[in-house]
Amino acid sequence: MTRFNEIDTPAILIDLDRAEANLHKAQQAADQAGLKLRPHIKTHKLPFFARRQVELGAIGITVQKLGEAEVMADAGLTDLLLTFNIIGAAKLARLRALHDRVTIRVVADSTECVAGLAGTFTDPARTLGVFVECDTGMGRCGVQSPAAALELARTIMAAPGLEFAGLMTYPAAGKYRQAAQWLSEAKTLFEAGGIAVPAITTGGTPDMWHMQDAAAIATEYRPGTYIYMDRSQVAAGAASYDDCALTVLATVVSRPTENRAIIDAGTKALTSDLLGLVGHGHVVEYPEARIARLSEEHGTLDLSDCARKPGIGETIRIIPNHCCPVTNLFDRVNLVRNGELVETLAVVARGRVD
Amino acid sequence: MTRFNEIDTPAILIDLDRAEANLHKAQQAADQAGLKLRPHIKTHKLPFFARRQVELGAIGITVQKLGEAEVMADAGLTDLLLTFNIIGAAKLARLRALHDRVTIRVVADSTECVAGLAGTFTDPARTLGVFVECDTGMGRCGVQSPAAALELARTIMAAPGLEFAGLMTYPAAGKYRQAAQWLSEAKTLFEAGGIAVPAITTGGTPDMWHMQDAAAIATEYRPGTYIYMDRSQVAAGAASYDDCALTVLATVVSRPTENRAIIDAGTKALTSDLLGLVGHGHVVEYPEARIARLSEEHGTLDLSDCARKPGIGETIRIIPNHCCPVTNLFDRVNLVRNGELVETLAVVARGRVD
Repeated sequence: MTRFNEIDTPAILIDLDRAEANLHKAQQAADQAGLKLRPHIKTHKLPFFARRQVELGAIGITVQKLGEAEVMADAGLTDLLLTFNIIGAAKLARLRALHDRVTIRVVADSTECVAGLAGTFTDPARTLGVFVECDTGMGRCGVQSPAAALELARTIMAAPGLEFAGLMTYPAAGKYRQAAQWLSEAKTLFEAGGIAVPAITTGGTPDMWHMQDAAAIATEYRPGTYIYMDRSQVAAGAASYDDCALTVLATVVSRPTENRAIIDAGTKALTSDLLGLVGHGHVVEYPEARIARLSEEHGTLDLSDCARKPGIGETIRIIPNHCCPVTNLFDRVNLVRNGELVETLAVVARGRVD
Repeated sequence: MTRFNEIDTPAILIDLDRAEANLHKAQQAADQAGLKLRPHIKTHKLPFFARRQVELGAIGITVQKLGEAEVMADAGLTDLLLTFNIIGAAKLARLRALHDRVTIRVVADSTECVAGLAGTFTDPARTLGVFVECDTGMGRCGVQSPAAALELARTIMAAPGLEFAGLMTYPAAGKYRQAAQWLSEAKTLFEAGGIAVPAITTGGTPDMWHMQDAAAIATEYRPGTYIYMDRSQVAAGAASYDDCALTVLATVVSRPTENRAIIDAGTKALTSDLLGLVGHGHVVEYPEARIARLSEEHGTLDLSDCARKPGIGETIRIIPNHCCPVTNLFDRVNLVRNGELVETLAVVARGRVD
């Protein structure tokens, strides 16, 4: 038996019981709201947890990259939503190969994107489902108005090999009401135009406990971070530190001054994501410590507020600001239960940049 | 022949001629200053370039992690400086295995660290060289005063299997004079104590064109970023955009509004490192474009200042704020000459977190 603090550092620890509890709680909330759950695997990047999410009731998974879709299809996942515009011949060919073996749907927010899909998928007997991505306040991808959504849906429907799958949005955090309003207007417009909207899919962990509100208009919900939670979700009120399943185990390698500790986890372990927060993470064993600065391989802790201070060689656990990109930095994660190492898994979908 | 813009995106491109020019220029500057060059491989993480650096005159390489040292030793590099405190039994065993096959030296800044080394390396016929790391203004690792450096050197010298190798510092950017002052005082103190300082090693790309100043006290210089350069080095005045050898090739996947373009490169391709800069990189083809925001897989460009604006499907090249962590995000880099793909290399030392 290996205790978690015997694992060489830096390393990712996943508390299995916490992750499992997070999965159950979200599935339950979705069930109660009458929403289908389609978790985003970008957070864990592991077939192990993707399969578990489906076992617990998810209707399928969400991926952001073709490379992630390929890994998950290889691992036996059969119902995928790829929430990213697929542009260019190389990617369209990969999408086609995926579509030949699993149920995969995609999004589009422009006629250019739809034209690429329409040129690749031409078989009316084996259509590709395409959601219209809607910018409901995030200011990223998406058509800018319900009228534009309707127009693009008509373009999709005019292509023999494509099928209009519904509306998709990633709402800005805290703006779920604004997103619901946008989608309601769109749905009304579509129905007035005689077009059924088969599904409306929304997402985001920060607002997932308002799923009941989302259910007034949406049919599917795509949370990602909820499986592990992190410091930004605690700040957003979506979780407590006791819900956080992912920590980065680090070692104190230097204590140059009374109030400074240097750990072996920098941006290459924690990323430099701040997400509006001050400091680079929460130290479980020393909650008063501030992770004041990161360079690539060093983290600088300010211990001014700590009554007790860690010594050289001591290990600490850090709840990162943003857990999703952290799993992208490690080849392996360590699954832990009651402080004991259960299994080490390769992060199979790590680094799937395209 | 593959043109660079036919490579699937996002992808790292390395302009071979620019990288080669950067290597030559730094070696020449070191030679003129009378300094030995020991490049830090954290920037490229490639045996290919490590070997080239040695071919051009470097006396060896610098690594930050045991995992990087192992990769480089496997690739035939024989003289390594590991500028990180090695703490704990697992890492000490790996260091010992490395020491059995190559010349490797390390650093220490505490008696705890030296004690671990002294307990592992006990053979006076095959000593381990240990530098004392000095905090000359960076506020990270390192002893806090020349007197403390002397005391720690004495502790190293008292261990039969260790050898005092000299002084090591990573100076804060722009504070090379302060660092030189610190090291001069230390050297005077050591000599007064009858202890020779075999080597003094300093580093940092931002101030590398002041190597002549550093040479007044230092014997070795460890630049890293200089091989590729990046936006932060341009901002620091150490390079121009025309020196930058690394770019991230990305595709415009959405144009939701007149002045917004979305590219397929977010923090998973560019990191969220700002290094004090505004915006997330420099767009080669559209220098007026601002990379205003990144999420994991999307980059949001503000095109307000662009007379000409990129269309969906167009590829652009981005000089990132900080090139070193970018190479850690990609499994492969594409070597390019005159815009043609020459070779694709695996980033062998990527993800060596421990």
